[in-house]
Order: sequence, then C-alpha cells, then structure tokens
Amino acid sequence: MIGLFIGRFQPFHNGHLEAVKWMLKKCDEVIILVGSSQFCYEKENPFTVGERIEMITSSLKAAGLWQKCQVLFLPDVQNNALWVVHVNSLIPNYDLVYSNNPLTRTLFEESGKKVESIPFHDRENCDGTKIRNIMGSGRGWERYMPAAAVEVVKRVKGPERLKSIGKGDKFEDVEEEE
Amino acid sequence: MIGLFIGRFQPFHNGHLEAVKWMLKKCDEVIILVGSSQFCYEKENPFTVGERIEMITSSLKAAGLWQKCQVLFLPDVQNNALWVVHVNSLIPNYDLVYSNNPLTRTLFEESGKKVESIPFHDRENCDGTKIRNIMGSGRGWERYMPAAAVEVVKRVKGPERLKSIGKGDKFEDVEEEE
Amino acid sequence: MIGLFIGRFQPFHNGHLEAVKWMLKKCDEVIILVGSSQFCYEKENPFTVGERIEMITSSLKAAGLWQKCQVLFLPDVQNNALWVVHVNSLIPNYDLVYSNNPLTRTLFEESGKKVESIPFHDRENCDGTKIRNIMGSGRGWERYMPAAAVEVVKRVKGPERLKSIGKGDKFEDVEEEE
Amino acid sequence: MIGLFIGRFQPFHNGHLEAVKWMLKKCDEVIILVGSSQFCYEKENPFTVGERIEMITSSLKAAGLWQKCQVLFLPDVQNNALWVVHVNSLIPNYDLVYSNNPLTRTLFEESGKKVESIPFHDRENCDGTKIRNIMGSGRGWERYMPAAAVEVVKRVKGPERLKSIGKGDKFEDVEEEE
Amino acid sequence: MIGLFIGRFQPFHNGHLEAVKWMLKKCDEVIILVGSSQFCYEKENPFTVGERIEMITSSLKAAGLWQKCQVLFLPDVQNNALWVVHVNSLIPNYDLVYSNNPLTRTLFEESGKKVESIPFHDRENCDGTKIRNIMGSGRGWERYMPAAAVEVVKRVKGPERLKSIGKGDKFEDVEEEE
Amino acid sequence: MIGLFIGRFQPFHNGHLEAVKWMLKKCDEVIILVGSSQFCYEKENPFTVGERIEMITSSLKAAGLWQKCQVLFLPDVQNNALWVVHVNSLIPNYDLVYSNNPLTRTLFEESGKKVESIPFHDRENCDGTKIRNIMGSGRGWERYMPAAAVEVVKRVKGPERLKSIGKGDKFEDVEEEE
Repeated sequence: MIGLFIGRFQPFHNGHLEAVKWMLKKCDEVIILVGSSQFCYEKENPFTVGERIEMITSSLKAAGLWQKCQVLFLPDVQNNALWVVHVNSLIPNYDLVYSNNPLTRTLFEESGKKVESIPFHDRENCDGTKIRNIMGSGRGWERYMPAAAVEVVKRVKGPERLKSIGKGDKFEDVEEEE
Repeated sequence: MIGLFIGRFQPFHNGHLEAVKWMLKKCDEVIILVGSSQFCYEKENPFTVGERIEMITSSLKAAGLWQKCQVLFLPDVQNNALWVVHVNSLIPNYDLVYSNNPLTRTLFEESGKKVESIPFHDRENCDGTKIRNIMGSGRGWERYMPAAAVEVVKRVKGPERLKSIGKGDKFEDVEEEE
Repeated sequence: MIGLFIGRFQPFHNGHLEAVKWMLKKCDEVIILVGSSQFCYEKENPFTVGERIEMITSSLKAAGLWQKCQVLFLPDVQNNALWVVHVNSLIPNYDLVYSNNPLTRTLFEESGKKVESIPFHDRENCDGTKIRNIMGSGRGWERYMPAAAVEVVKRVKGPERLKSIGKGDKFEDVEEEE
Repeated sequence: MIGLFIGRFQPFHNGHLEAVKWMLKKCDEVIILVGSSQFCYEKENPFTVGERIEMITSSLKAAGLWQKCQVLFLPDVQNNALWVVHVNSLIPNYDLVYSNNPLTRTLFEESGKKVESIPFHDRENCDGTKIRNIMGSGRGWERYMPAAAVEVVKRVKGPERLKSIGKGDKFEDVEEEE
Repeated sequence: MIGLFIGRFQPFHNGHLEAVKWMLKKCDEVIILVGSSQFCYEKENPFTVGERIEMITSSLKAAGLWQKCQVLFLPDVQNNALWVVHVNSLIPNYDLVYSNNPLTRTLFEESGKKVESIPFHDRENCDGTKIRNIMGSGRGWERYMPAAAVEVVKRVKGPERLKSIGKGDKFEDVEEEE
Repeated sequence: MIGLFIGRFQPFHNGHLEAVKWMLKKCDEVIILVGSSQFCYEKENPFTVGERIEMITSSLKAAGLWQKCQVLFLPDVQNNALWVVHVNSLIPNYDLVYSNNPLTRTLFEESGKKVESIPFHDRENCDGTKIRNIMGSGRGWERYMPAAAVEVVKRVKGPERLKSIGKGDKFEDVEEEE
C-alpha cells in the first residue's frame, strides 16, 4: 500500500516526522509531496523547495526511513479543480491520501481517492506558523524539528532570513525602510 | 445592438437574470462573459468556470432567452491595462458594456467603448457575497437564484464545498486542523 | 562604476530623483529597474510600466541626467530565490545595488553583490503610499514629484484613475456598487 | 444527448457545418470547442479566437442551428495528459466526443469518454490547410465556407493577412526582407 | 559525493540504468532529474513525468539501488540562461554533473559546476529515439529496457500510445484523418 | 518625433547601427526594442537579453548616439493579435515604426500606427543568420559588427557558445552524443 502525504513543510518538523512513522505502520511506502513549491523568501513560505526537500530527505535518512519514502514537489495550480489531476500526473499509483485539511480531503474524495486523518503529535508546539514565528524573533525553535532539518535551517541562515522577510516586501519604496 | 455583461457569477443569481432581461429590451444580443474564470474552490470563488457556464446557460434556456445570448469566459490578466484588449480578442463586435463597477467602467471608457449602468434588482439579497455566506453556513440561499442554477449548485454539492473551503487553504499544516 | 537602483516607482517622486543624483556622485552610470512591472490599475500599483518608464526618463532628461542612466523593468518572479538571477539576466555588469529594504539586501548579498543604503530625502512626504493616497482623495501631490513626472500623471488622468480603483476590483458583483 | 465537437477551425468551413448538422441528428445539443485558441496571425493559425467564434456563431445562426449549439474555446495546455481535464473543467456534462484524430480519440477514451467518428463532406476541398493556401495565394476559397463565415474573413482582410504572414516571422532581421 | 544525472528518459532504458551503476562507483548518491517534465503524448515525449518517475524508481528498486538515489523532475524553462539556477533551486548540494551533451556541459560549467562524461552502454540499441520508433511500429523494444520499466510501459499501453501520436496533432482538422 | 525600431538583434550588427543613424536624421529619439527577449542559448537566439542590451547600448555610446536612444525589451506573446498592445504598454508615445517585415507592418498598421521601411546597409553581409553561422563555424564575423558589440560577444565567449548549441538540445539522450 502506497500513502501520499501532502504539505508545505515550512519547515519540516517533528510532527511531520512522527506522521510519516505512523503512516509506515500501515503503508509499504509513503510519497511526501511538497506543495506550494514555487514560493520562498516569504513570511509564510520562507524556505525554497530545494531546502525543504533536503530537510525531509536528511531527516528520513537519519531516522532510517529513506528507503520506504519518496519526496516530490508540486507548484501551486491556479485552478483548484485541476489540482488533484496535477498530483496524479506525478504519482500514477497511490492508495491512500493522508490529510487533516477539509478542502484537500474534499478535492481528493471527489476524485474518488480514499482519505485518512493524521493523529497529532505535540500539536501545541509542532505547528508551522508557531515555529516560523519563534525562528524569526526568538529562540528554541530547534527542539521542534529533527536534528538533520535543523542543520539545513542553520546552514541557510533561516532565522536571519525570517527576520529580513519580516521587514516588508522587496519592492517597498525606499522611503519606507531605514 | 450587442451588449456585453461581465461578472464573476459566483454564483449566477436572480439579480443577474433580471439584468439580462433588462439588457435584452435594448439589445438584440447579450454576450455574458464569466471573469476570473480560472479560480474555483476558494471562499470568494467557489464554483468552476464550467459550473458557472452551466448555471448561466441552463437559467437562460429555462427563461427562453438562450437564443439571444452567448456565454464566454476569460481568465484574469495580471496587467489590468491589457484586460480590455483580451476581452476584445474574444468578442470582436459589441456596442455597449454593462457594468456598475468604476474600474471596469474606466478601463472600457478609456478604450473608447460606451458603458451603461445596470439597475439593481432586490439588491439587499441578490448579492454574491451574501449568497455565498448563506450557502456555506445556513439555509435559504435557493430563493435568490434561478431554479436551473440551484439545480447545478445542488448537483455539485455547493453548500458542502463552501463549508470545506471555509476551514482553510489546502496547504495548511496538518497540525492546524482537526 | 555602475549602480543599480530598484523600485516600483508608483509614482516616481522627488525622493527617487534625489537618490539618483546622490548615486551619480559615486557611480558613472545608474541603471534604474522598474519592478513589479506587470501590475497597474491597482491601489498599490496604479501606473503601467510604460507610464512609469516615461515618468523616469522625462524627469532624468529634465534634470540633465539622462546620458548617465538607463531604465529597464522586470515583472515579478513567483520564486524569490530566482529573482536576483532574473535581474542579472537583464543587466550583465553592475557593481553596486542601492536599497534600503532588508529582503532585497539579503537576496543580493546572498548572491555576492555589494549593497548600499540610500539616504532619505524629505522622508515624511516623499513616500509612495502617501502620495498615492493624496492623489486619490485630495490635492497637493504635485509638489512631491518632478515636474516632468507630474505632467505624465496628469496626461493619463492619474487622480481620476486612483479614485476609480478605490471603489473595488473590476469583478465585484454588480449589486455591490452603485 | 450532448455532443462535443473539437477543432481549431482555421477557418470554419462547409465540412465543419455539415458535421454539426450530422451530429444534431443524434444529439440534442452540440458544444463546439475552439482549440489552440491563443494562436493567430500565424501560417497554420491565421485567425484569432474571436474571429473564429464569430465565424462559427454567425454560420450557425444563418443555418438556424444556433439554439442547439454552444461555442467555447480552450488555449493549448503544454501537458497533453491534462488536456481532457481542462476540457472537462469547461463543459461538465457531455455524452459523446466527435473526432477523427487518433490522439484526441485516445486521450478521451482513456478518460472514459465515448468517441465517434465524423463522416467527411467534400473531403478534397473542405480542408483547412488547402483553404488557407488558396486564401493566401489564389482565389476561390469562398466556395468552401459558409457565407456568414466568408463575410467575417473578408471584413478582417483574411487573404491580405495570410499573404503578410507568409513572408516570415515578425522578428526576422531587417536585412532578410525587402 | 553527490552526482546529478539529467535526461528526458523517454523512456528509461538499459543504458540509463548502467550509467547510474557506473556513477555509483564514484558517488555516494545520484540524483536523477527528469527534464522536459511537462511534455507527454508527443512523438518525442510519449510518457508523462509520473510514468517516467515510476519507470526509474521501480527499475532502481529492482536493481537494489534505490536507497542511494533520488528522483526529481523539472519542467522546461524558456530562458536557457536560467535553467541551471532552476536546477539548483531544487537540489542545493551536488558535486558533479554527468552529461555528454555539449550545451548542458557549457551551461553547468559556466555556472562553476564540475561536469563529467558518461561511458556509453550498447550505444547502437540503447537510444531513446530508436526505442520509441520500435515501440511505435515494430517489436522487440522490451530487450533494451529494465524489466520493471517495461512493465510500466505495458501497463500504460505505451506502444498503442505511440501509434496514435504518430497520426498527427490532436487539433488536425477532421478532414485530414480517416 | 519618436521612432520605434524592433528586432531580435541576435547579434546587433553594423546594419542595425546604420539603421539607427538613418532614423535619427528624421527622429529626435529612437526607441530600440529587443524582441523575443526570453530566448537565448539557442541556434537562432544565442544571446541573452542582457547581452543584447549591452551590445546595443555600448555600440550607441561609442557612436555618440546614446542620449538620443532608449533600449527596452519584450518577451514573445503567444497571441500575435495582442503583441502591439504589449509594445504600447511599454512605450506610451511613439510616432513611427520602422520595419521591413510584412507581418510586423500589418500588425502595427492595423492598430493605426504609421510604419516606414528601412534602407539596407551591406545587406549581403549584415544578416543575422549569416553572422551567427560564421560565428559558430568559421571566422571573420567581427567585421560585420560594431567594435563595442564585438567586445561583448568575445567576453561571453559567443563563438564557443554557438558551437556547443549546434550539437543538439540540452535534453538529448546521453547515447546520442559522444
């Protein structure tokens, strides 16, 4: 059985890794699809697709899960009605979609796919928005991510990037910044 | 005389149908252009272009107006200055644009087209935003739409779709939904 | 030495012109790059790329700076990580980037370019957002822009355009406007 | 029963009109989809989508078939595997596809749609390539097209356009033309 | 050491598999990048990106190489000068590019990457063009591909697809086919 | 009077420079528009838009014509019917288009612009195709280009680039090259 796990993974955190482990109890293979792949250096999307792929693959390797996983990515499609078809054009055979998001569930179910929920792991802390906020303004974000993913974030200077993004879009008129 | 009626028609409601009837008093033919055609399964744009076209054509047929109308569509153009030219590349000959929106009026007037206002029909209720809100959370939306359009909305499970859209974008991190 | 000055120039105002003069004390040539070139007839982006280029070139000519400048433009790139590379594909040789925006500075510095800050000129008034607001609702905007740029704004009826944009997107349902 | 008739219609000729008549013996409605809609002013694609739509609608009106037809269009999709899904996003309900092209037949059949062949009408002359060639270099093309479509071609100066297209792409270096 | 192996893999054949084996003598990991990912159902590009990824991953698994490989894909970029940067945005860290194509070699070398040639394996037969031709018109193509890739081609009816593609583009006028 | 000179300028040669001089006898200013700006590292389009802009500006500066010229660029537009409008969105005010190409002339004339022919200068040799061929395979191309443009071609290793492009597209299967 092949499972499909879809997310933006901004960043890939412990909750995601625990979810993969949980899926692999049932599935022989998990395909991890990095969505909104084209966005980066934005407040909600700080990391590039390459950085996210590297966070995921290095965390899976460190956890001994790599040979049972595959990582792919998908840029956004303007027309949501065509989104599942774009997913399917990348991954011809999968049996099960994992998602807790109602719209994702609806889109896959309308296309005839089976969808299952994912149990939460340390939901209070393993939350993308929260981790990005800590990363951009405080400290302690490292504890919520796999060590291999932390290393990627540090190498690309993630916290500094989040701080510079927070000061406004790159086309702000010069007079609006000091 | 050929009139052009532009809108997003999310959904097509009684106000739109009354507007077409009113235009046909003056025009021999009305071309109905479905704008923002590429968006769907979004809070402001729940219905696909195909669903909107079907709502419109079936309502016009039921009202006996089909042979005097034509329905086309247009995806958004990033550059607003080129929007009227994109419209014109689809519809070579039209005499009159119907719109109550100041920017649409400006864009067509600057291109030399004649623009007229549309009288409102039951403005308080025949309002896209209001109908979408009722559809997603309560009941009674059917009374503001032509019966043939209601049928399309029901067949594609519009109210369920609006509820699932309201819970957040399909790329929300798994921990943010239950 | 060739300097690169990046902005949206919505509109080109006295602060921008003073900045160019200041850069030309150090640089032999300044390349002015009009960003977000594809947007126009929007609240934050009222002017077309052609209008902005004309504002800039006519102001530079009037100030006797034209032969030391070049004006180019760049549409937005979805993937911010690729933005500097798109800039570089237009302008093969430049020595120095002028910007006060942290994200722009980060993106250029990560690509190995030298970045310098721009001293503010009459910062309180020479501010794009403020000038657009005055232009759309009051009077007196002319004093903050070079005379040649003012002429372009007047010829294209900038204040009227800003007023019509302020009433909502061109796809607002007809019932929502009067 | 709703039939779908797909083509480029460069131009719409007698063979196409006869095909619609033949389909309407079996179908209650025929949806005519203008493909490759974005191309025009090219040797293989001389007419704009608007001109093609006008040729078709005016020919159908003259033949008294308009109330049983609907005309839509579709730009090309780079990924052929997604093409049928784009078609379906425009036309939610159709029962039968008419096409003599093996690839089109394969794509629709693989998606589960029923496909039927179209009998040829005056195949030797009612041929898009042949009619474009005559239009660009000789005379007599009018006899192979419905009168209403001929009128559109004449109004937009089709023969002159085909002659100017034949002399090379608009970016040929100046020295290559006289 | 991480190697990068780029190709269209239309289809993935024995020569490609032998190349990966040869690279893994030197590299700890090989990233296989499927180029021109958006094209399919065309004479030169019959297989979808999903089908190609499946051919590659199943062949690598059967050969016991999967844990040392990663498969990604990239749509074409119009501007060749930006192509390597798009590759790099997907794969942040690689040491070596494998390619026998002069333009690919030039583009990577100009960006500062090290490039090496690939020794040929049964060059006369392990050739994409030749295998596609046999697949579309004769028999015996199976012997040039890994068994797991053959299975994918058979499941998606590759030979039938190549035959139907060979009869012309999906927008050929109806009169041109029988 | 402002003249518009459109071309691909692959590369900018003596014929182009002579044409600008000739236009400036009549015009106060010439805007040089680099078309097909997105293509490069291709047989017909070897140079990037940045390289072409640099060839043109450095040649004009050396010839003392820079202050009377402006260089802009435009990516191709799929829909030729919209091409002149895209040009106009960049260059709001020009009086005269210079072109010897029938399709370009038709497109501008249909939009109401005045078009004039350009006298040829050493037509036999000042020909883009011919110069590219010499550059890729022989020698002596330098004599047909302004010295400043020659310098740009040499710095970016134009002849080597043309040789590597000539060996086939970057996605050729590895077995097809040696």
